[in-house]
Amino acid sequence: MEKIHVIKIGGNVIDHPEKLRSFLADFSHLKGMKILVHGGGKIATEMSKTLGIVPQMVDGRRITDDETLKVVTMIYAGLINKNIVAQLQTLHCNAIGLCGADGNLIPAQKRIKGDIDYGWVGDPIEIKEPHPLLTALLKENTVPVFPAITHDQQGHLLNTNADTIAATLAIRLASSFETHLVYCFEKKGVLKDVNDENSVIHFIDPHHFQQLKQEHIIFEGMIPKLENAFDAIHKGVKTVRIGLADDLLQLNQGENFGTCLKPLA
Amino acid sequence: MEKIHVIKIGGNVIDHPEKLRSFLADFSHLKGMKILVHGGGKIATEMSKTLGIVPQMVDGRRITDDETLKVVTMIYAGLINKNIVAQLQTLHCNAIGLCGADGNLIPAQKRIKGDIDYGWVGDPIEIKEPHPLLTALLKENTVPVFPAITHDQQGHLLNTNADTIAATLAIRLASSFETHLVYCFEKKGVLKDVNDENSVIHFIDPHHFQQLKQEHIIFEGMIPKLENAFDAIHKGVKTVRIGLADDLLQLNQGENFGTCLKPLA
Repeated sequence: MEKIHVIKIGGNVIDHPEKLRSFLADFSHLKGMKILVHGGGKIATEMSKTLGIVPQMVDGRRITDDETLKVVTMIYAGLINKNIVAQLQTLHCNAIGLCGADGNLIPAQKRIKGDIDYGWVGDPIEIKEPHPLLTALLKENTVPVFPAITHDQQGHLLNTNADTIAATLAIRLASSFETHLVYCFEKKGVLKDVNDENSVIHFIDPHHFQQLKQEHIIFEGMIPKLENAFDAIHKGVKTVRIGLADDLLQLNQGENFGTCLKPLA
Repeated sequence: MEKIHVIKIGGNVIDHPEKLRSFLADFSHLKGMKILVHGGGKIATEMSKTLGIVPQMVDGRRITDDETLKVVTMIYAGLINKNIVAQLQTLHCNAIGLCGADGNLIPAQKRIKGDIDYGWVGDPIEIKEPHPLLTALLKENTVPVFPAITHDQQGHLLNTNADTIAATLAIRLASSFETHLVYCFEKKGVLKDVNDENSVIHFIDPHHFQQLKQEHIIFEGMIPKLENAFDAIHKGVKTVRIGLADDLLQLNQGENFGTCLKPLA
């Protein structure tokens, strides 16, 4: 099977033009088929403030109301996505910006859990096969770039977690490609000692993961992140890596990039 | 040659959610291959005002400065484009939203004329063949939807006239498809008597166009519009039609839609 990388970058890269430029240069040099998924960063929050939109909270959860949906659509799918595409094009990377509504690439469901209506927030529907249009685009040597926007197939766009979009795409691709999912975040990887940047744990399998949780080496926010990552592996994704955006090109050298999650040997 | 329609809608449709919904329903029923190009309408102007952006004018011409470019990118390529795509998807029309930077579909040049720097305004570069990616997307039965944004291939997005984008796409497609360019505007067509909506001139060829100009039946803003339309015909576009968005489905019946510009018989 042909190899593909699905790379996700978050606000820590998006929010700094210099970091973003440097990341995109590296990304353009990453060999083989690839997809980029990007979060939104602070620009949307700042725009909401400027427009006087008061964040709606229910039970401590932020709700995506009509006005917030407009802002994230404008900023994620418009401003950030198209600027990333234009920059990648200058780097000879044939980027094409697509949200989940485009070609119905990522159908999703509006999230309603118990009594909480999260507003225009979406959870992608799980589908096993890759979307034929996405496969066609990859075969045309384009590099799809996704913002964190999907749709409900009933005419509404939905604000959707970028990590989830990356995992959803990777899981669908896994039946046709050797799929590697890469989360760029603010640390070099999962750390044995949270205060020591050089204590990266290079490999974790599901068994090892249970141990690390019991020993409280992995805790809090990292647990759901890694659980989702192992879910993707369980569904056929070959590896999930978590590491520093700056280290991306280590993937070309076959060197260790951050922490690599793998199925049981 | 297979037939394709390139349809352009302007602010008069975009600005009215009901009109837009009704137009998109009609558009989804238009038979055969098709592309939609949309302008921006008043939403961008209103957003600029809300954000306190003062329009920059040079010699009576509006300049697209950095802040204005951000607004049109957000509104045209983000908010309007993705909402049109989501609506078309519910109408079983497999829309895919693409700006000129995506896949380098519409490379353009920053406009500098004489002493006037128009800011981030672009004029598309003339290319004879259709973009292979666009052809591939059409063959995948997708319906490309373009906002009025291109790029300079140097990392900058460019604010670009939607009429020009529609003509540029049509001219490129004309070498491979029987291409029909359709401008939806606020009247039923080119009128013999500007006060009589029923005085539509159904056909105009270049010879007839000269006569109508001499007789001052066509004047002012219509002259450059029609000159650009005849330029497209000169470059291989089979017909250019100008008419009311409401009448779009007349194209399926082979009936007259507004004014049809044709080459000399």
